[in-house]
Amino acid sequence: MGRIVYLNGEYLPEDQASVSIFDRGFLMADGVYEVTSVLDGKLLDFDGHAVRLERSLSELDMTMPLDKDTLLEIHRELVRINDVTDGGVYLQITRGAPGDRDFVFPDPEQTPQTVVLFTQSKPGIANSPQALTGLKVISIDDVRWGRRDIKTVQLLYPSMGKMMAKAAGCDDAWLVEDGAVTEGTSNNAYIVKGGKIITRDLSNDILHGITRSAVLRFAREAQMDVEERAFTIAEAQDADEAFITSASMFVMPVVEVDGVAVGTGKPGSVAARLREIYLDESRKSAI
Amino acid sequence: MGRIVYLNGEYLPEDQASVSIFDRGFLMADGVYEVTSVLDGKLLDFDGHAVRLERSLSELDMTMPLDKDTLLEIHRELVRINDVTDGGVYLQITRGAPGDRDFVFPDPEQTPQTVVLFTQSKPGIANSPQALTGLKVISIDDVRWGRRDIKTVQLLYPSMGKMMAKAAGCDDAWLVEDGAVTEGTSNNAYIVKGGKIITRDLSNDILHGITRSAVLRFAREAQMDVEERAFTIAEAQDADEAFITSASMFVMPVVEVDGVAVGTGKPGSVAARLREIYLDESRKSAI
Repeated sequence: MGRIVYLNGEYLPEDQASVSIFDRGFLMADGVYEVTSVLDGKLLDFDGHAVRLERSLSELDMTMPLDKDTLLEIHRELVRINDVTDGGVYLQITRGAPGDRDFVFPDPEQTPQTVVLFTQSKPGIANSPQALTGLKVISIDDVRWGRRDIKTVQLLYPSMGKMMAKAAGCDDAWLVEDGAVTEGTSNNAYIVKGGKIITRDLSNDILHGITRSAVLRFAREAQMDVEERAFTIAEAQDADEAFITSASMFVMPVVEVDGVAVGTGKPGSVAARLREIYLDESRKSAI
Repeated sequence: MGRIVYLNGEYLPEDQASVSIFDRGFLMADGVYEVTSVLDGKLLDFDGHAVRLERSLSELDMTMPLDKDTLLEIHRELVRINDVTDGGVYLQITRGAPGDRDFVFPDPEQTPQTVVLFTQSKPGIANSPQALTGLKVISIDDVRWGRRDIKTVQLLYPSMGKMMAKAAGCDDAWLVEDGAVTEGTSNNAYIVKGGKIITRDLSNDILHGITRSAVLRFAREAQMDVEERAFTIAEAQDADEAFITSASMFVMPVVEVDGVAVGTGKPGSVAARLREIYLDESRKSAI
């Protein structure tokens, strides 16, 4: 039996959920998204995702089609109907489907936004075996557009990056621009050197990760040293450890960068500790 | 009565044409497109568009879902059914709709590509009054991704650019990177100085315009001087004339750049002559 998904006010079997070919999400990538993780049937960092969603929409001259409480209710209802214990809820909002294709934005009074949500069940994500072995990453040029702080569906290059990593026998790719790492294809990137956690500072160059924000807060609360600045691939290869954060991977160690082992070549203690703290704290505040 | 559109082998009323919410065009902008102009019920430069389509697909590790003759037949059938005299045929191909969202490309054996075509009727496009008054453009930063030579549906920024132009009381925007104009939001950009036609050379930085290619060929055949190189906004403001080319605008004069009149502030003779030659020659070879 397939999932039940949410589309524009209706709960539908997934194979009946479709959008017009004139939807601006389909024709022009004119849409934004969020993925909220689920552990033990509860939502992690829902508020953070809702705030970022509203910001993404606002940067594109769109408004929230539903208030936060209604969005929360839909998330919970989908988790309930689809019996999701661990996994995530994907949410996408586009500028809707005007009657024709035009670069000019449609009048929002005439063209309601498209709102889609669906669940992805991933049993045991908190105990992923990858957390014990770590990821191997390659570096690739960051050729994405300049507003990576807006979480748009323009994901073609991240998708290509995952394929390049796969072709190289690796798990993911780190994106490099002007000699420094921006972030991973769908996650923020970190290194640890001499006990210091180093990750790129926030700007339009990277996504303002909800998990990033929580992990850095927990790290500082635990008296760990955090430096927000750009770093190079050479620095990563020379680091004591490396890791990534994302809503669906939490904190995940990186053990190899461009074929060079990072530190001992095994997951490091800082990443392990941050993963544990993040999972503990997120479970406590999950709703 | 609405249009009849083509979707994955079927001819359908436009309000019944929809794609799965899992279509990678909708979720990840993983698709390419072409727009072929129609004059007097015939297709302009169909071969050029088909060749570029195949190249765009190939750059994204996709293949042509239908052979060129079949594509031509669908284009013609849509023009016929919808009684299009002047306008265009829009074609989009995505990597299809796997059963779920994943950055990894689906196996093409399991997931057929999505193929959509629809017509847009624009009576009298060859006699557009804009060709007599010219366009006003503003310049904006070019923050698009680095592979603009692939005609993907990642059109959010060009769409935002049109809105910025509109907000400034202008018709379009020219994109500027590293101090030089790359192209317009959905067209190639040109200036004319001392009888010489100047337009940016081909690279991954710009779309390889089908109309650009034809117009430059006609210009050279007419013994006009053509230089393919980057130019600045200051050069454009100091030029004798300026214009753009695109499949749907043909050759269209530009009379103002960032509030500064170009040349006399009226459409120039080179643009007018190229427009005439392009329309004449395209009509002759239309199929």
